[in-house]
Amino acid sequence: MTTREAAAGVGREERFVATAAEMFLSLDGEIRVGGHYVGLVEHDGLAYISGQIPRVHDAVAVTGRVGAETSLAEGCRAARICTMRALALLRQRPGGLARVRRVLRMTVYTQSAPDFVRQSEVADAASDLLHAILGDAGVHARTSVGAFTLPKNAAVELDLLVAVEPEECPS
Amino acid sequence: MTTREAAAGVGREERFVATAAEMFLSLDGEIRVGGHYVGLVEHDGLAYISGQIPRVHDAVAVTGRVGAETSLAEGCRAARICTMRALALLRQRPGGLARVRRVLRMTVYTQSAPDFVRQSEVADAASDLLHAILGDAGVHARTSVGAFTLPKNAAVELDLLVAVEPEECPS
Amino acid sequence: MTTREAAAGVGREERFVATAAEMFLSLDGEIRVGGHYVGLVEHDGLAYISGQIPRVHDAVAVTGRVGAETSLAEGCRAARICTMRALALLRQRPGGLARVRRVLRMTVYTQSAPDFVRQSEVADAASDLLHAILGDAGVHARTSVGAFTLPKNAAVELDLLVAVEPEECPS
Repeated sequence: MTTREAAAGVGREERFVATAAEMFLSLDGEIRVGGHYVGLVEHDGLAYISGQIPRVHDAVAVTGRVGAETSLAEGCRAARICTMRALALLRQRPGGLARVRRVLRMTVYTQSAPDFVRQSEVADAASDLLHAILGDAGVHARTSVGAFTLPKNAAVELDLLVAVEPEECPS
Repeated sequence: MTTREAAAGVGREERFVATAAEMFLSLDGEIRVGGHYVGLVEHDGLAYISGQIPRVHDAVAVTGRVGAETSLAEGCRAARICTMRALALLRQRPGGLARVRRVLRMTVYTQSAPDFVRQSEVADAASDLLHAILGDAGVHARTSVGAFTLPKNAAVELDLLVAVEPEECPS
Repeated sequence: MTTREAAAGVGREERFVATAAEMFLSLDGEIRVGGHYVGLVEHDGLAYISGQIPRVHDAVAVTGRVGAETSLAEGCRAARICTMRALALLRQRPGGLARVRRVLRMTVYTQSAPDFVRQSEVADAASDLLHAILGDAGVHARTSVGAFTLPKNAAVELDLLVAVEPEECPS
Protein backbone atom coordinates (compact mmCIF):
# COMPACT_ATOMS: atom_id res chain seq x y z
CA MET A 1 0.00 0.00 0.00
CA THR A 2 1.07 3.60 -0.53
CA THR A 3 1.53 5.96 2.37
CA ARG A 4 -1.56 7.82 1.24
CA GLU A 5 -3.60 4.65 1.18
CA ALA A 6 -2.31 3.67 4.59
CA ALA A 7 -3.19 7.10 5.94
CA ALA A 8 -6.69 6.72 4.55
CA GLY A 9 -7.08 3.38 6.23
CA VAL A 10 -7.04 1.37 3.01
CA GLY A 11 -6.65 -2.33 3.60
CA ARG A 12 -7.21 -2.28 7.35
CA GLU A 13 -10.49 -4.11 7.11
CA GLU A 14 -8.98 -6.75 4.85
CA ARG A 15 -5.98 -7.23 7.11
CA PHE A 16 -8.19 -7.51 10.19
CA VAL A 17 -10.33 -10.17 8.53
CA ALA A 18 -7.32 -12.10 7.23
CA THR A 19 -5.65 -12.02 10.65
CA ALA A 20 -8.80 -13.19 12.42
CA ALA A 21 -9.03 -16.07 9.95
CA GLU A 22 -5.39 -17.04 10.50
CA MET A 23 -6.04 -17.03 14.25
CA PHE A 24 -9.30 -18.97 13.82
CA LEU A 25 -10.99 -16.13 15.69
CA SER A 26 -14.62 -15.30 15.25
CA LEU A 27 -15.19 -11.75 16.45
CA ASP A 28 -18.22 -10.83 14.40
CA GLY A 29 -20.71 -10.90 17.24
CA GLU A 30 -21.17 -7.97 19.54
CA ILE A 31 -18.58 -7.96 22.32
CA ARG A 32 -20.68 -7.69 25.43
CA VAL A 33 -19.81 -6.85 28.96
CA GLY A 34 -21.80 -7.37 32.11
CA GLY A 35 -22.57 -4.59 34.53
CA HIS A 36 -22.69 -0.86 34.24
CA TYR A 37 -19.76 -0.29 31.97
CA VAL A 38 -19.13 -0.63 28.26
CA GLY A 39 -16.41 -1.93 25.98
CA LEU A 40 -15.77 1.43 24.35
CA VAL A 41 -16.56 5.05 25.20
CA GLU A 42 -16.05 7.66 22.52
CA HIS A 43 -15.70 11.30 23.51
CA ASP A 44 -14.29 14.28 21.67
CA GLY A 45 -12.33 12.34 19.08
CA LEU A 46 -10.94 9.72 21.44
CA ALA A 47 -12.04 6.12 21.91
CA TYR A 48 -11.43 4.66 25.37
CA ILE A 49 -11.38 0.87 25.13
CA SER A 50 -11.95 -1.29 28.19
CA GLY A 51 -9.37 -3.82 29.31
CA GLN A 52 -9.57 -6.85 27.03
CA ILE A 53 -8.75 -10.38 28.08
CA PRO A 54 -8.21 -13.19 25.55
CA ARG A 55 -11.79 -14.30 25.62
CA VAL A 56 -13.14 -16.23 22.65
CA HIS A 57 -16.89 -16.60 22.88
CA ASP A 58 -17.56 -17.71 26.46
CA ALA A 59 -14.12 -19.02 27.37
CA VAL A 60 -10.78 -17.41 28.12
CA ALA A 61 -8.45 -18.89 25.51
CA VAL A 62 -5.17 -18.38 27.39
CA THR A 63 -5.03 -18.58 31.19
CA GLY A 64 -2.31 -18.99 33.81
CA ARG A 65 0.89 -17.24 34.76
CA VAL A 66 3.28 -16.50 31.92
CA GLY A 67 6.69 -17.89 32.81
CA ALA A 68 5.18 -20.67 34.90
CA GLU A 69 2.39 -22.90 33.58
CA THR A 70 1.94 -20.66 30.55
CA SER A 71 4.72 -20.16 28.02
CA LEU A 72 5.97 -16.88 26.57
CA ALA A 73 4.59 -17.99 23.20
CA GLU A 74 1.16 -18.55 24.75
CA GLY A 75 1.41 -15.14 26.41
CA CYS A 76 2.08 -13.58 23.02
CA ARG A 77 -0.90 -15.41 21.57
CA ALA A 78 -3.03 -14.05 24.40
CA ALA A 79 -1.81 -10.52 23.68
CA ARG A 80 -2.76 -10.90 20.03
CA ILE A 81 -6.27 -12.10 20.87
CA CYS A 82 -6.75 -9.16 23.25
CA THR A 83 -5.60 -6.80 20.49
CA MET A 84 -8.02 -8.31 17.98
CA ARG A 85 -10.85 -7.88 20.47
CA ALA A 86 -9.94 -4.24 20.98
CA LEU A 87 -9.89 -3.71 17.22
CA ALA A 88 -13.20 -5.55 16.92
CA LEU A 89 -14.75 -3.01 19.30
CA LEU A 90 -13.55 -0.18 17.05
CA ARG A 91 -14.61 -2.07 13.94
CA GLN A 92 -18.20 -2.63 15.02
CA ARG A 93 -18.79 1.13 15.14
CA PRO A 94 -19.91 3.12 12.10
CA GLY A 95 -16.89 3.84 9.93
CA GLY A 96 -14.97 0.93 11.41
CA LEU A 97 -11.20 0.76 11.41
CA ALA A 98 -10.97 3.42 8.69
CA ARG A 99 -11.82 6.03 11.34
CA VAL A 100 -8.69 5.27 13.38
CA ARG A 101 -6.30 8.22 13.29
CA ARG A 102 -3.76 6.97 15.78
CA VAL A 103 -3.45 4.53 18.65
CA LEU A 104 -2.23 6.86 21.39
CA ARG A 105 -1.58 4.56 24.32
CA MET A 106 -1.70 0.88 25.19
CA THR A 107 -1.28 -0.59 28.66
CA VAL A 108 -0.45 -4.31 28.76
CA TYR A 109 -0.78 -6.37 31.93
CA THR A 110 0.81 -9.83 31.87
CA GLN A 111 -0.17 -12.23 34.64
CA SER A 112 3.35 -13.27 35.57
CA ALA A 113 5.37 -15.86 37.40
CA PRO A 114 7.34 -14.30 40.28
CA ASP A 115 10.55 -14.28 38.26
CA PHE A 116 9.10 -13.49 34.83
CA VAL A 117 10.50 -10.20 33.53
CA ARG A 118 9.91 -10.48 29.77
CA GLN A 119 6.61 -8.54 29.78
CA SER A 120 7.94 -6.35 26.97
CA GLU A 121 8.04 -9.34 24.65
CA VAL A 122 4.43 -10.16 25.39
CA ALA A 123 3.50 -6.54 24.72
CA ASP A 124 5.51 -6.56 21.49
CA ALA A 125 3.12 -9.18 20.12
CA ALA A 126 0.28 -6.69 20.60
CA SER A 127 2.26 -3.72 19.28
CA ASP A 128 3.37 -5.63 16.19
CA LEU A 129 -0.21 -6.65 15.41
CA LEU A 130 -1.49 -3.07 15.75
CA HIS A 131 1.19 -1.99 13.29
CA ALA A 132 0.50 -4.87 10.91
CA ILE A 133 -3.18 -3.96 10.68
CA LEU A 134 -3.19 -0.18 11.08
CA GLY A 135 0.21 0.77 9.68
CA ASP A 136 1.82 3.90 11.14
CA ALA A 137 -1.49 4.80 12.82
CA GLY A 138 -0.93 1.76 15.02
CA VAL A 139 2.33 3.01 16.53
CA HIS A 140 1.65 4.06 20.11
CA ALA A 141 3.03 4.93 23.53
CA ARG A 142 3.02 1.87 25.77
CA THR A 143 3.24 0.72 29.35
CA SER A 144 3.87 -2.93 30.10
CA VAL A 145 3.73 -4.39 33.60
CA GLY A 146 3.49 -7.73 35.35
CA ALA A 147 0.15 -8.24 37.09
CA PHE A 148 -0.25 -10.51 40.11
CA THR A 149 -3.64 -11.82 39.01
CA LEU A 150 -6.09 -10.97 36.25
CA PRO A 151 -9.84 -11.46 35.92
CA LYS A 152 -10.81 -15.05 35.15
CA ASN A 153 -7.15 -16.10 35.39
CA ALA A 154 -6.46 -14.48 32.00
CA ALA A 155 -2.80 -14.57 31.00
CA VAL A 156 -2.93 -11.05 29.55
CA GLU A 157 -5.14 -7.98 29.71
CA LEU A 158 -4.66 -4.80 27.71
CA ASP A 159 -6.46 -1.53 27.09
CA LEU A 160 -6.18 1.13 24.39
CA LEU A 161 -6.74 4.82 23.87
CA VAL A 162 -7.35 5.60 20.21
CA ALA A 163 -7.74 8.90 18.33
CA VAL A 164 -10.56 8.61 15.79
CA GLU A 165 -11.99 10.79 13.04
CA PRO A 166 -15.11 12.71 14.03
CA GLU A 167 -18.32 10.79 13.50
CA GLU A 168 -20.32 11.72 10.42
CA CYS A 169 -23.49 13.62 11.17
CA PRO A 170 -26.51 11.33 10.97
CA SER A 171 -28.33 12.06 7.71
CA MET B 1 -36.17 11.16 37.06
CA THR B 2 -36.70 11.86 33.38
CA THR B 3 -33.93 11.37 30.84
CA ARG B 4 -33.71 15.12 30.49
CA GLU B 5 -33.33 15.60 34.20
CA ALA B 6 -30.72 12.87 34.35
CA ALA B 7 -28.80 14.50 31.51
CA ALA B 8 -28.88 17.78 33.38
CA GLY B 9 -27.51 16.15 36.49
CA VAL B 10 -30.72 16.47 38.48
CA GLY B 11 -30.69 14.40 41.62
CA ARG B 12 -27.02 13.53 41.59
CA GLU B 13 -26.26 15.63 44.64
CA GLU B 14 -29.18 14.09 46.54
CA ARG B 15 -28.16 10.56 45.58
CA PHE B 16 -24.56 11.21 46.59
CA VAL B 17 -25.61 12.51 49.99
CA ALA B 18 -28.05 9.65 50.56
CA THR B 19 -25.45 7.06 49.59
CA ALA B 20 -22.82 8.60 51.85
CA ALA B 21 -25.33 8.49 54.70
CA GLU B 22 -26.18 4.85 54.05
CA MET B 23 -22.46 4.05 54.09
CA PHE B 24 -21.93 6.17 57.22
CA LEU B 25 -19.31 8.07 55.24
CA SER B 26 -18.36 11.63 56.03
CA LEU B 27 -16.68 13.11 52.99
CA ASP B 28 -17.41 16.76 53.53
CA GLY B 29 -13.89 17.78 54.49
CA GLU B 30 -11.32 18.55 51.88
CA ILE B 31 -9.66 15.39 50.62
CA ARG B 32 -5.98 16.14 51.05
CA VAL B 33 -2.91 14.48 49.72
CA GLY B 34 0.65 14.81 50.85
CA GLY B 35 3.48 15.72 48.51
CA HIS B 36 3.60 17.44 45.18
CA TYR B 37 0.52 16.01 43.58
CA VAL B 38 -3.19 16.68 43.84
CA GLY B 39 -6.40 14.69 44.01
CA LEU B 40 -7.79 16.11 40.79
CA VAL B 41 -6.39 17.95 37.80
CA GLU B 42 -8.79 19.56 35.35
CA HIS B 43 -7.62 20.39 31.86
CA ASP B 44 -9.51 21.10 28.67
CA GLY B 45 -12.81 19.59 29.79
CA LEU B 46 -11.36 16.51 31.44
CA ALA B 47 -10.91 15.79 35.13
CA TYR B 48 -8.06 13.43 36.00
CA ILE B 49 -8.67 11.93 39.42
CA SER B 50 -5.84 10.42 41.44
CA GLY B 51 -5.96 6.83 42.60
CA GLN B 52 -8.33 6.58 45.56
CA ILE B 53 -7.98 4.07 48.36
CA PRO B 54 -10.81 3.36 50.84
CA ARG B 55 -9.61 5.90 53.32
CA VAL B 56 -12.09 7.31 55.80
CA HIS B 57 -10.61 10.23 57.69
CA ASP B 58 -7.16 9.05 58.76
CA ALA B 59 -7.64 5.29 58.48
CA VAL B 60 -7.95 2.88 55.58
CA ALA B 61 -11.34 1.24 56.11
CA VAL B 62 -10.69 -1.97 54.17
CA THR B 63 -7.22 -3.53 54.05
CA GLY B 64 -5.77 -6.91 53.15
CA ARG B 65 -5.82 -9.23 50.16
CA VAL B 66 -9.22 -9.91 48.66
CA GLY B 67 -9.75 -13.65 48.44
CA ALA B 68 -7.55 -14.29 51.48
CA GLU B 69 -8.03 -12.39 54.76
CA THR B 70 -10.46 -9.98 53.07
CA SER B 71 -13.75 -11.21 51.61
CA LEU B 72 -15.19 -10.39 48.21
CA ALA B 73 -17.96 -8.47 49.97
CA GLU B 74 -15.39 -6.39 51.83
CA GLY B 75 -13.58 -5.80 48.54
CA CYS B 76 -16.82 -4.51 47.05
CA ARG B 77 -17.30 -2.22 50.03
CA ALA B 78 -13.77 -0.91 49.52
CA ALA B 79 -14.53 -0.22 45.86
CA ARG B 80 -17.63 1.75 46.82
CA ILE B 81 -15.74 3.89 49.31
CA CYS B 82 -13.06 4.63 46.70
CA THR B 83 -15.79 5.63 44.26
CA MET B 84 -17.43 7.94 46.77
CA ARG B 85 -14.08 9.59 47.42
CA ALA B 86 -13.55 10.14 43.70
CA LEU B 87 -17.02 11.65 43.43
CA ALA B 88 -16.33 13.79 46.50
CA LEU B 89 -13.32 15.27 44.70
CA LEU B 90 -15.54 16.22 41.77
CA ARG B 91 -18.24 17.47 44.10
CA GLN B 92 -16.04 19.86 46.03
CA ARG B 93 -15.34 21.84 42.85
CA PRO B 94 -17.58 24.70 41.70
CA GLY B 95 -20.61 23.24 39.95
CA GLY B 96 -20.17 19.91 41.68
CA LEU B 97 -21.52 16.68 40.26
CA ALA B 98 -23.87 18.54 37.90
CA ARG B 99 -20.85 19.38 35.75
CA VAL B 100 -20.11 15.71 35.02
CA ARG B 101 -20.75 14.94 31.35
CA ARG B 102 -19.43 11.40 31.27
CA VAL B 103 -17.12 9.12 33.19
CA LEU B 104 -14.76 8.04 30.41
CA ARG B 105 -12.48 5.51 32.04
CA MET B 106 -12.01 3.79 35.37
CA THR B 107 -9.06 1.59 36.34
CA VAL B 108 -9.64 -0.66 39.34
CA TYR B 109 -6.78 -2.37 41.17
CA THR B 110 -7.74 -5.09 43.64
CA GLN B 111 -5.07 -6.26 46.07
CA SER B 112 -5.53 -9.94 45.48
CA ALA B 113 -4.80 -13.37 46.90
CA PRO B 114 -2.65 -15.42 44.48
CA ASP B 115 -5.65 -17.39 43.24
CA PHE B 116 -8.26 -14.60 43.35
CA VAL B 117 -9.62 -13.97 39.86
CA ARG B 118 -12.95 -12.22 40.56
CA GLN B 119 -11.58 -8.68 40.18
CA SER B 120 -14.45 -7.89 37.81
CA GLU B 121 -16.96 -8.36 40.62
CA VAL B 122 -15.08 -5.93 42.81
CA ALA B 123 -15.01 -3.42 39.96
CA ASP B 124 -18.73 -3.97 39.33
CA ALA B 125 -19.43 -2.53 42.78
CA ALA B 126 -17.74 0.69 41.68
CA SER B 127 -19.37 0.72 38.24
CA ASP B 128 -22.81 0.12 39.71
CA LEU B 129 -22.39 2.99 42.15
CA LEU B 130 -21.27 5.40 39.43
CA HIS B 131 -24.39 4.48 37.48
CA ALA B 132 -26.63 4.75 40.52
CA ILE B 133 -25.50 8.29 41.25
CA LEU B 134 -24.72 9.69 37.79
CA GLY B 135 -27.12 7.74 35.59
CA ASP B 136 -26.02 7.14 32.00
CA ALA B 137 -23.21 9.69 32.46
CA GLY B 138 -21.65 7.18 34.86
CA VAL B 139 -21.27 4.41 32.27
CA HIS B 140 -17.58 4.11 31.39
CA ALA B 141 -14.80 2.08 29.83
CA ARG B 142 -13.02 0.03 32.47
CA THR B 143 -9.87 -1.91 33.21
CA SER B 144 -9.78 -4.20 36.22
CA VAL B 145 -6.61 -5.94 37.39
CA GLY B 146 -5.24 -7.74 40.43
CA ALA B 147 -2.50 -5.77 42.18
CA PHE B 148 0.22 -7.44 44.23
CA THR B 149 0.27 -4.74 46.88
CA LEU B 150 -1.36 -1.35 47.29
CA PRO B 151 -0.41 1.70 49.33
CA LYS B 152 -1.15 1.34 53.05
CA ASN B 153 -2.32 -2.26 52.46
CA ALA B 154 -5.54 -0.96 50.90
CA ALA B 155 -7.78 -3.70 49.50
CA VAL B 156 -8.72 -1.63 46.44
CA GLU B 157 -7.49 1.43 44.57
CA LEU B 158 -9.19 3.06 41.60
CA ASP B 159 -8.79 6.12 39.44
CA LEU B 160 -11.16 7.94 37.06
CA LEU B 161 -11.07 10.10 33.98
CA VAL B 162 -14.19 12.26 33.74
CA ALA B 163 -15.46 14.61 31.03
CA VAL B 164 -16.87 17.78 32.61
CA GLU B 165 -18.71 20.85 31.40
CA PRO B 166 -16.49 23.88 30.91
CA GLU B 167 -16.05 25.97 34.04
CA GLU B 168 -18.09 29.15 34.23
CA CYS B 169 -16.09 32.30 33.76
CA PRO B 170 -15.40 33.96 37.10
CA SER B 171 -17.67 36.99 37.41
CA MET C 1 12.10 32.55 39.87
CA THR C 2 8.94 34.63 39.62
CA THR C 3 5.57 33.01 39.03
CA ARG C 4 5.54 34.53 35.57
CA GLU C 5 8.93 33.09 34.75
CA ALA C 6 7.88 29.71 36.09
CA ALA C 7 4.74 29.83 33.98
CA ALA C 8 6.85 30.58 30.93
CA GLY C 9 9.08 27.63 31.65
CA VAL C 10 12.09 29.74 32.58
CA GLY C 11 14.82 27.73 34.23
CA ARG C 12 13.40 24.29 33.48
CA GLU C 13 16.19 23.41 31.09
CA GLU C 14 18.82 24.54 33.58
CA ARG C 15 17.21 22.60 36.42
CA PHE C 16 16.95 19.47 34.28
CA VAL C 17 20.62 19.66 33.33
CA ALA C 18 21.72 20.35 36.91
CA THR C 19 19.64 17.46 38.23
CA ALA C 20 20.98 15.07 35.62
CA ALA C 21 24.52 16.09 36.57
CA GLU C 22 23.83 15.56 40.28
CA MET C 23 22.48 12.11 39.46
CA PHE C 24 25.43 11.37 37.14
CA LEU C 25 22.86 10.68 34.43
CA SER C 26 23.62 11.06 30.77
CA LEU C 27 20.35 11.35 28.90
CA ASP C 28 21.49 13.29 25.86
CA GLY C 29 21.25 10.42 23.40
CA GLU C 30 18.00 9.50 21.78
CA ILE C 31 15.92 7.26 24.04
CA ARG C 32 15.13 4.32 21.81
CA VAL C 33 12.63 1.54 22.11
CA GLY C 34 12.48 -1.73 20.25
CA GLY C 35 9.42 -2.88 18.40
CA HIS C 36 6.44 -1.08 16.97
CA TYR C 37 5.86 1.50 19.64
CA VAL C 38 7.46 4.80 20.56
CA GLY C 39 8.56 6.61 23.69
CA LEU C 40 6.18 9.51 23.18
CA VAL C 41 3.09 10.17 21.09
CA GLU C 42 1.82 13.71 20.78
CA HIS C 43 -1.76 14.33 19.76
CA ASP C 44 -3.98 17.36 20.11
CA GLY C 45 -1.94 19.12 22.78
CA LEU C 46 -1.23 16.04 24.87
CA ALA C 47 1.98 14.03 25.10
CA TYR C 48 1.54 10.37 26.00
CA ILE C 49 4.81 9.04 27.43
CA SER C 50 5.54 5.32 27.48
CA GLY C 51 6.29 3.51 30.73
CA GLN C 52 9.85 4.35 31.77
CA ILE C 53 12.08 2.02 33.74
CA PRO C 54 15.30 3.23 35.41
CA ARG C 55 17.45 2.34 32.46
CA VAL C 56 20.77 4.12 32.06
CA HIS C 57 22.32 3.37 28.68
CA ASP C 58 22.00 -0.39 28.27
CA ALA C 59 21.51 -1.41 31.88
CA VAL C 60 18.67 -1.09 34.38
CA ALA C 61 20.19 0.91 37.22
CA VAL C 62 17.84 -0.26 39.99
CA THR C 63 16.37 -3.77 39.98
CA GLY C 64 14.66 -6.05 42.49
CA ARG C 65 11.69 -5.87 44.80
CA VAL C 66 11.41 -2.75 46.93
CA GLY C 67 11.01 -3.78 50.55
CA ALA C 68 13.00 -6.97 50.02
CA GLU C 69 16.39 -6.98 48.31
CA THR C 70 15.94 -3.34 47.25
CA SER C 71 15.61 -0.55 49.83
CA LEU C 72 13.02 2.21 49.88
CA ALA C 73 15.84 4.68 49.19
CA GLU C 74 16.86 2.71 46.11
CA GLY C 75 13.22 2.63 45.00
CA CYS C 76 13.11 6.41 45.27
CA ARG C 77 16.28 6.67 43.23
CA ALA C 78 14.69 4.43 40.60
CA ALA C 79 11.62 6.66 40.51
CA ARG C 80 13.79 9.72 39.97
CA ILE C 81 15.69 8.10 37.09
CA CYS C 82 12.37 7.10 35.45
CA THR C 83 11.15 10.68 35.83
CA MET C 84 14.30 12.10 34.26
CA ARG C 85 13.90 9.72 31.33
CA ALA C 86 10.31 10.84 30.83
CA LEU C 87 11.42 14.48 30.91
CA ALA C 88 14.26 13.67 28.52
CA LEU C 89 11.67 12.39 26.02
CA LEU C 90 9.82 15.71 26.26
CA ARG C 91 13.07 17.64 26.10
CA GLN C 92 14.34 16.08 22.91
CA ARG C 93 11.34 17.44 21.01
CA PRO C 94 11.33 20.91 19.42
CA GLY C 95 10.59 23.48 22.11
CA GLY C 96 11.73 21.13 24.85
CA LEU C 97 10.56 21.46 28.42
CA ALA C 98 9.39 25.04 27.84
CA ARG C 99 6.40 23.60 25.96
CA VAL C 100 5.08 21.76 29.04
CA ARG C 101 1.82 23.30 30.21
CA ARG C 102 0.93 20.77 32.89
CA VAL C 103 1.66 17.21 33.88
CA LEU C 104 -1.86 15.80 34.02
CA ARG C 105 -1.38 12.26 35.28
CA MET C 106 1.38 9.96 36.43
CA THR C 107 1.03 6.25 37.14
CA VAL C 108 3.79 4.72 39.25
CA TYR C 109 4.32 0.97 39.50
CA THR C 110 6.70 -0.22 42.23
CA GLN C 111 7.90 -3.82 42.03
CA SER C 112 7.14 -4.72 45.61
CA ALA C 113 7.86 -7.23 48.32
CA PRO C 114 4.65 -9.02 49.43
CA ASP C 115 4.36 -6.86 52.53
CA PHE C 116 5.64 -3.56 51.08
CA VAL C 117 2.93 -0.91 51.29
CA ARG C 118 4.93 2.34 51.04
CA GLN C 119 4.46 2.78 47.29
CA SER C 120 3.33 6.37 47.89
CA GLU C 121 6.77 7.27 49.21
CA VAL C 122 8.41 5.88 46.09
CA ALA C 123 5.98 7.87 43.96
CA ASP C 124 6.64 11.01 46.04
CA ALA C 125 10.24 10.93 44.83
CA ALA C 126 8.95 11.22 41.26
CA SER C 127 6.32 13.84 42.13
CA ASP C 128 8.83 15.96 44.02
CA LEU C 129 11.26 15.89 41.10
CA LEU C 130 8.56 16.92 38.60
CA HIS C 131 7.74 19.86 40.85
CA ALA C 132 11.39 20.77 41.38
CA ILE C 133 12.03 21.00 37.64
CA LEU C 134 8.68 22.17 36.25
CA GLY C 135 7.28 24.18 39.15
CA ASP C 136 3.50 24.29 39.44
CA ALA C 137 3.19 22.81 35.95
CA GLY C 138 4.61 19.61 37.42
CA VAL C 139 1.79 19.10 39.93
CA HIS C 140 -0.33 16.21 38.70
CA ALA C 141 -2.97 13.59 39.48
CA ARG C 142 -1.34 10.32 40.43
CA THR C 143 -1.95 6.63 40.84
CA SER C 144 0.57 4.51 42.71
CA VAL C 145 0.38 0.72 42.90
CA GLY C 146 2.55 -2.26 43.77
CA ALA C 147 3.42 -4.37 40.74
CA PHE C 148 4.21 -8.07 41.01
CA THR C 149 6.94 -7.98 38.37
CA LEU C 150 8.23 -5.36 35.96
CA PRO C 151 10.10 -5.64 32.66
CA LYS C 152 13.79 -6.52 33.09
CA ASN C 153 13.29 -6.79 36.85
CA ALA C 154 13.10 -2.99 37.12
CA ALA C 155 12.31 -1.74 40.62
CA VAL C 156 9.99 1.00 39.32
CA GLU C 157 8.13 1.88 36.14
CA LEU C 158 6.12 5.05 35.55
CA ASP C 159 4.28 6.76 32.74
CA LEU C 160 3.08 10.33 32.21
CA LEU C 161 0.40 12.26 30.40
CA VAL C 162 1.48 15.85 29.76
CA ALA C 163 -0.36 18.85 28.31
CA VAL C 164 1.93 20.75 25.95
CA GLU C 165 1.74 23.99 24.00
CA PRO C 166 0.80 23.55 20.34
CA GLU C 167 3.75 22.90 18.08
CA GLU C 168 4.93 25.86 16.04
CA CYS C 169 4.03 25.66 12.39
CA PRO C 170 7.03 24.53 10.34
CA SER C 171 8.42 27.53 8.48
